[in-house]
Amino acid sequence: QMPRGNLETIHHRALVLAQIRKWLDFLMFKEAFECMRKLRINLNLIYDHNPKVFLENVEIFIKQIDSVNYINLFLTELKEDDVRKTMYPTAVFDKASPNSKDVKKVDLICDALRAAMETINPHKYCLSILTSHVKKSNPQLEVALQKVHELRENPPTASDAVSAEDALKYLLFLVDVNELYDHSLGTYDFDLVIMVAEKSQKDPKEYLPFLNDLKKMETNYQRYTIDKHLKRYNKALCHLTKCGPEHFSELLKLVKDHKLYTEGLKLFQSGTQEYKDINNAYGEYLNEKHQYEQAGLIFARCGRFEKALDAFVASCCWQQALCMASLLQFTEDKLADLARSLSGKLVEHRKHAEASLLLEQYAQDYEDAILLLLEGSIWEEALRLIYKYNRPDILETNLRPSIIEAQRNHLVFLESQKTTFTRHKARLLVVRELKERARQGLLDEEVQECPETDLVSETGSSIMTASEASSKYTHSNSRISSRSSKNRRKAERKRHSLKEGSPLEDVALLEAICETIKTVDKLRGEVHCLLKVLVLFEYDEQARELQQCMDDVLQLMEKSIPEIWITDRQQSSAAPVLGPNSTANSITASFQQPKSTTHAVHGETELLMVPKLNNSLQWKLGLLE
Amino acid sequence: QMPRGNLETIHHRALVLAQIRKWLDFLMFKEAFECMRKLRINLNLIYDHNPKVFLENVEIFIKQIDSVNYINLFLTELKEDDVRKTMYPTAVFDKASPNSKDVKKVDLICDALRAAMETINPHKYCLSILTSHVKKSNPQLEVALQKVHELRENPPTASDAVSAEDALKYLLFLVDVNELYDHSLGTYDFDLVIMVAEKSQKDPKEYLPFLNDLKKMETNYQRYTIDKHLKRYNKALCHLTKCGPEHFSELLKLVKDHKLYTEGLKLFQSGTQEYKDINNAYGEYLNEKHQYEQAGLIFARCGRFEKALDAFVASCCWQQALCMASLLQFTEDKLADLARSLSGKLVEHRKHAEASLLLEQYAQDYEDAILLLLEGSIWEEALRLIYKYNRPDILETNLRPSIIEAQRNHLVFLESQKTTFTRHKARLLVVRELKERARQGLLDEEVQECPETDLVSETGSSIMTASEASSKYTHSNSRISSRSSKNRRKAERKRHSLKEGSPLEDVALLEAICETIKTVDKLRGEVHCLLKVLVLFEYDEQARELQQCMDDVLQLMEKSIPEIWITDRQQSSAAPVLGPNSTANSITASFQQPKSTTHAVHGETELLMVPKLNNSLQWKLGLLE
Repeated sequence: QMPRGNLETIHHRALVLAQIRKWLDFLMFKEAFECMRKLRINLNLIYDHNPKVFLENVEIFIKQIDSVNYINLFLTELKEDDVRKTMYPTAVFDKASPNSKDVKKVDLICDALRAAMETINPHKYCLSILTSHVKKSNPQLEVALQKVHELRENPPTASDAVSAEDALKYLLFLVDVNELYDHSLGTYDFDLVIMVAEKSQKDPKEYLPFLNDLKKMETNYQRYTIDKHLKRYNKALCHLTKCGPEHFSELLKLVKDHKLYTEGLKLFQSGTQEYKDINNAYGEYLNEKHQYEQAGLIFARCGRFEKALDAFVASCCWQQALCMASLLQFTEDKLADLARSLSGKLVEHRKHAEASLLLEQYAQDYEDAILLLLEGSIWEEALRLIYKYNRPDILETNLRPSIIEAQRNHLVFLESQKTTFTRHKARLLVVRELKERARQGLLDEEVQECPETDLVSETGSSIMTASEASSKYTHSNSRISSRSSKNRRKAERKRHSLKEGSPLEDVALLEAICETIKTVDKLRGEVHCLLKVLVLFEYDEQARELQQCMDDVLQLMEKSIPEIWITDRQQSSAAPVLGPNSTANSITASFQQPKSTTHAVHGETELLMVPKLNNSLQWKLGLLE
Repeated sequence: QMPRGNLETIHHRALVLAQIRKWLDFLMFKEAFECMRKLRINLNLIYDHNPKVFLENVEIFIKQIDSVNYINLFLTELKEDDVRKTMYPTAVFDKASPNSKDVKKVDLICDALRAAMETINPHKYCLSILTSHVKKSNPQLEVALQKVHELRENPPTASDAVSAEDALKYLLFLVDVNELYDHSLGTYDFDLVIMVAEKSQKDPKEYLPFLNDLKKMETNYQRYTIDKHLKRYNKALCHLTKCGPEHFSELLKLVKDHKLYTEGLKLFQSGTQEYKDINNAYGEYLNEKHQYEQAGLIFARCGRFEKALDAFVASCCWQQALCMASLLQFTEDKLADLARSLSGKLVEHRKHAEASLLLEQYAQDYEDAILLLLEGSIWEEALRLIYKYNRPDILETNLRPSIIEAQRNHLVFLESQKTTFTRHKARLLVVRELKERARQGLLDEEVQECPETDLVSETGSSIMTASEASSKYTHSNSRISSRSSKNRRKAERKRHSLKEGSPLEDVALLEAICETIKTVDKLRGEVHCLLKVLVLFEYDEQARELQQCMDDVLQLMEKSIPEIWITDRQQSSAAPVLGPNSTANSITASFQQPKSTTHAVHGETELLMVPKLNNSLQWKLGLLE
């Protein structure tokens, strides 16, 4: 006979798991539990094996186990993961855990077990019930403490009952003592607090004076103090509110310190002084955060119109600012001053229409109002004011020169956009060709020395970016200038290097081309308005010239789009790649090829979308054709 | 010895061409010409072989050929095509024809030959010179006729000169007689006309009375009559202008009959009565064509302000209409009536801001002006007017109810859009799954009878289109109604059938989803304004509810976009398809697969672009978070 070793105590995991599953299927929890405990198999499996069956048979489970310690062991070992997935995977695995998303597994089991234990014998299972409270994903420490307190107040007579003392000890074993102390404070039950404090290692000299102070306070103020101590500021605010108006300054401080403006406002009736004061504080807070418009709204609704006015002026909300001025009963002179100052700010933001309205309606400064409209190329509105205020002299002195200048500016700008576009397009085709050759491995040293490369660099160096070109033609009386500077900033933000030979030069070119197309496309409406006023003042030739130029550029771009953006359809209509001579690699290569020219560039998909021209806008005048 | 046949007269084309090229290279035109003529080789080759060399040696060519007939033959055989490409292709073929685009080849040769012939001997080559005029792409028949006329007036004394008679005969051989007659008329030279007429088969009774009538007329009127007869209306107009003001009514008729408004306007100084009259006629013509705005501009500039006013009112150009009213010195009452009528029209087009301005500034109807702004959800402007005209009562009676109603409408609308979106998305995934299965050949009869298909039809039947849903929630005081009706029309235009099982159901669903996303995305600005005014009037809860709802819908859409639009990048990161078990077909299929789910749908590329959410717009209020 061979010497006996430890061999017989080694169990094959798969066989054991199979056996446990069988036991669980037959609701033989006791056997399963014992075995799992002995072989250190995660107890979550009891539930995870078949959640539905377990939840339906919780009472049987408890009655079979029949041990507070074992149930505590089970509860403390619970976790959210499904151990069938993480630890004990099986081949057959199709029962999805119910409510996996909405209700948490641990909470579900805790509640089910507690309900069962309270039915069977709440005294016997007292500690397990406490465990079930503590183990919840959001631990119900107050409830557990309350149960302990009850045990002390009304010690149960049942023989198997647990004493309050033992229960508290057990709780302190489960939960950190400081946490438990805080939560006991949170119940506002001083008996409970002292009970916990006594069990803790805390020094009575530390907590007794605090508790004594608290005891002397009015209930709501006491609770507010506790909440504040526990950093439960929302609750603190609620309790402080109930302490009456004499504590309002303290309340306002609490609101400000912890930014509880929204919560504070909910606690007071609109119209009360308190409500207004909180709003005022809120407004100041928003001001500090430079959210002037919202600050203005908040100041306005609590009657702080001057502060509101300042905030609205700071955020350029001219309409609201005027409302405030009315509420403040500004004199006409003061109103005119305000209007002029707002008007200046609006012009900075190139909001000429609004700026003009302010001068017209609040400063009675009609001439400047009209000049602002001309500066903003708002021709029809300018005409309206010219006739409304009977100033036909401005037609000759300002309007005619303005529209002629605008026409010239547009021509220059369009010409520059056209040049940029053409250059970028040409360079893009060259870059693509070079990349294609490089891909085919044809770009060896010999080729690099051929004259064509010189040609390439020549083209490259003469490229101007759209923004460079447009920045040359910024004029004060045209919208073009603001647009181009905006575009420039925007362009700089996302532009790749247009430098010749940079690795993503094709992407950069595509971006620049896209930008140019969008810029010109957006001009339609503006050009349309200008054409109309040119015709009205008999500048037919200039109008025709502009319409022709704009049309040329748009057509050039529209015609070029299919050359620049190779669409999927064109690619798929390419020659078939299957045939007797094709190999797996050749087929793959042929499918990957278009990607290397167009798709590889698809780093930023947004940029590579074909820009859509707004052809639905009828910008042309038929009479100029 | 074999019997001799025709064999020795057969020439090998390639050998012949090689010989001709050699001759041409050596400027041996005579030999080349003779050979080509004999062997019926297209004579264009003489030029096409080397255009530059030919053009430089035209004189040598003529001197070598030395035959009017041959030169005529050469000229008449000329055509634009490069015969090296079309008829006689060669292996070496690199000389690009110069100026191929700008100047036409035939014109170039005609002009070069004519210049040479006129230098060498204009008398001898007279007929060839005529040919060179006639052969031009735009035949110079007048010039040719003029030359013939000159021959008649001053018969040349040179022995080799051609008589006018012969020249005319030759011309009639080249050109149709009626055409030549018309062109002779066009020279306004009656001698020439009669000369041609006599040579033609025309009946003198036909043309002589007409010519006699013409002869009696004043020169310009005569030319006008001829131009009109020849349907050369532009020239006719020019000549008629020179006939003086007594013919102006006839001129105006000509302008109207042949729509020569632009040309007519160029002939008269701005400010003259004639200029005004033509403008007036032009305006009426544009009115007839329902181009009211342009008609208005034209009427305005010729001082027909009443007509202009009508046209501007018809085209809803309210600013211009008001300008006309000022010019017509409308009384205040009349102006107010006009303003009210325009305001009504603008409201129909949902232009509430403009409609309100009219009532405020031209009808002094402040209350209605404010109500219009509320109807158009233009809250801040409404507030401005309320305070400007000191009507705080409207805050309670109208503004508060309006913003609360707007909040409710937005909530209902957003909820409906969310429902639609969710349904369409779910159905799209089902349809894609079905298509995928069909593609894999798994959708046989068995599968079609499984319960899942029932589920599918259930889902399908409950689908509401975005427009159906939105049309349920059209409210009179919200911008939503106009938007949705506009969307509906737009959507109907391009929508495929959403009917369940329709072949392009997935495209239709994608369209509908896209539409919904765009609709909600566009609401940002409007919702932002509403939130601000809700906060101002202390409707914090309602504001928070709306912000939350809007945010939920936007986030749902943003989160869904990657599920709905499978991007290229995701596809390319799919599992590799090459391997020892792959076949040519399997590789191809794997590349084509993504296309069948996403790309196959790419019929209208525009629709399948991932809709871009305007996330840069800060629509949320921080204070509501």
